[in-house]
Amino acid sequence: MQPVTYQPIGIIRSPYVDVVGMPIQAVAARGVAGTIELAPSLAGGIKDIEGFSHLTLIYHLHLSKGVELEVVPFMDLKAHGIFATRSPKRPNPIGISVVRLTGVEEGRLLIEDVDIVDGTPLLDIKPYVPAIDDRQTDRIGWFAGRVERVQEIRADDRFQQP
Amino acid sequence: MQPVTYQPIGIIRSPYVDVVGMPIQAVAARGVAGTIELAPSLAGGIKDIEGFSHLTLIYHLHLSKGVELEVVPFMDLKAHGIFATRSPKRPNPIGISVVRLTGVEEGRLLIEDVDIVDGTPLLDIKPYVPAIDDRQTDRIGWFAGRVERVQEIRADDRFQQP
Repeated sequence: MQPVTYQPIGIIRSPYVDVVGMPIQAVAARGVAGTIELAPSLAGGIKDIEGFSHLTLIYHLHLSKGVELEVVPFMDLKAHGIFATRSPKRPNPIGISVVRLTGVEEGRLLIEDVDIVDGTPLLDIKPYVPAIDDRQTDRIGWFAGRVERVQEIRADDRFQQP
Repeated sequence: MQPVTYQPIGIIRSPYVDVVGMPIQAVAARGVAGTIELAPSLAGGIKDIEGFSHLTLIYHLHLSKGVELEVVPFMDLKAHGIFATRSPKRPNPIGISVVRLTGVEEGRLLIEDVDIVDGTPLLDIKPYVPAIDDRQTDRIGWFAGRVERVQEIRADDRFQQP
């Protein structure tokens, strides 16, 4: 398979200069404000984006070091396959977060609910639309009985060690 | 900003050999069966994935040709900024779909609700967990009053023309 190369469309700014202590999901970062600094050449791409209250961000987890096929995620004490977790040490370290859009300025988007470290390269922005994005699940695997703890658990440095 | 290079983790197989006529979102592809052929070296990464009813797939829209900062999406007659749409002609042609996981075989995942063309390079798989992924929106921009049509609209070749 051919490798795929992307050029970041911008940079995500946030209050988190370090991964340690960060919320581990956007739902646990309620009200945390950040900014998207969009590449100037792409400014035309955000026309009409102000109509949306939420955006899905797709970004490169640039601080993740190395790959592990089984990891002990922040929310459990047992190891699971990396594709059954949201942990950063993925074969392709891609992160997704749904954030709240609070303002649009010249070449910048103001956002909240930011669980992303400062300086993260942004790959894509999509409008979040529940009728397209939400599902009724039957099973949520090992998250069952644990996902409620997402609000209290914070990140440590386990995924920054090579 | 430095470019980012990813190696696909597998290939998505589907009944759609051509983009034309495809459903434009996974919610409009109910029951359409496909397969993920995972790279053999990554087989260990799917441990415990069978516990999840839904997965978020992140993939490379390899048939999208060129970039347009404003597009007329399938669901509207007016142009919008590319980041206010889900159209493929994005600066980084990354697609996301939430699909149903129906089975796990040696190195293969059986999936349904597949709105993805056959042969698409897969970049990442994440377990879909509503408590993490779903939001209450205040505004869905130009999708308001139009998203209901997602079930009837089918793709054409507008995003395959350079």
